[in-house]
Amino acid sequence: MKGHFITFEGVEGSGKTTQMAILGHALETRGYPVVRTREPGGTKIGDAIRSLILDSKNQMMDAKTEFLLYLASRAQHLKEVILPALAEGKVVLCDRFADATYAYQGYGRGLSKREIELIGRFVTGGLSPDLTLLLDIDVKKGLARLKGREEINRLDQEALQFHESVRKGYLNLAKRNPRRIRVIRTDAGVEEIAKKIKEAVDDYFRVP
Amino acid sequence: MKGHFITFEGVEGSGKTTQMAILGHALETRGYPVVRTREPGGTKIGDAIRSLILDSKNQMMDAKTEFLLYLASRAQHLKEVILPALAEGKVVLCDRFADATYAYQGYGRGLSKREIELIGRFVTGGLSPDLTLLLDIDVKKGLARLKGREEINRLDQEALQFHESVRKGYLNLAKRNPRRIRVIRTDAGVEEIAKKIKEAVDDYFRVP
Repeated sequence: MKGHFITFEGVEGSGKTTQMAILGHALETRGYPVVRTREPGGTKIGDAIRSLILDSKNQMMDAKTEFLLYLASRAQHLKEVILPALAEGKVVLCDRFADATYAYQGYGRGLSKREIELIGRFVTGGLSPDLTLLLDIDVKKGLARLKGREEINRLDQEALQFHESVRKGYLNLAKRNPRRIRVIRTDAGVEEIAKKIKEAVDDYFRVP
Repeated sequence: MKGHFITFEGVEGSGKTTQMAILGHALETRGYPVVRTREPGGTKIGDAIRSLILDSKNQMMDAKTEFLLYLASRAQHLKEVILPALAEGKVVLCDRFADATYAYQGYGRGLSKREIELIGRFVTGGLSPDLTLLLDIDVKKGLARLKGREEINRLDQEALQFHESVRKGYLNLAKRNPRRIRVIRTDAGVEEIAKKIKEAVDDYFRVP
């Protein structure tokens, strides 16, 4: 693996999409070959799986079903997009990856964290991001931000408590992986957050 | 669990559909409440997953993706259909279940059998069929039978070698589970096969 695998994580409305766009542009300006992608999705098959997961008609979906669909999308994403890009030395920016499964399905839905890790490893073959930018926001603020958006999917309708659990899951992961996961508080304006992310990425690339 | 969970297994063209219909009718005639279902599918969400798996446009599908989609369908199926029906004391007749995953994804696709068992147990919670009718046919004969059918899906296009491996997987499973899995040779005519199945089911119900 010659490339760099950088993931963005965070609860709904934490600003991942905007910040990933800014970082992608900055890295390209510096001459890095950048691949932007997201989960669930990132491939044709993955996008079909994403539609299934987010379809508001699928309220009946079992937590295990949801978990397995996320992993199915991930397996395809790794094979078609992430692994080839890393092998070619590219910088892969990915909106959500395995940490999201741990936070959402483990802390949020209450599935066994041990089984999530075991089954997750079967899917990733042990591949972990080189750097994870965890955009941390107060859950209520994040959900309020979302109201400005048009798309209201099934996840957005979940109770506040669910999102609080997810946030707690993310912060616990960050504590356990302090080298890989950088927590970026997103109380500030877009530019200030972008600056903090740039610092974390510079630190990773060891650019002075 | 008060009900009875009976599964039909076998390679393509082994005659599962016909035989399940005959057995279902016979059991209902005897007064049993019967639920007929199949995998992948059996639920609205499962049917959407089934379409994804069988779509001939999805040739790019990774073996792990396929495996996880089958399990996602199974988790939903168990929750919505199989477990409630068994709890109500019904006879559940299911066209394919976990043995198919072991035979197709393990022997056919070459995924780790140990991981298939581990992850499979996470999905089923350890539930196993009470009786499995393995309809065994020569692979070439089975595929030839299929040519009379209109639907040609992605699996039907797989090489003969793949189906030979699947059959071998099924027969190995039957050797390891002689009490649960009854191998029914399907060289005979429909009525003779139905008679053998009836005998196996009578034996299970201990009807003299």
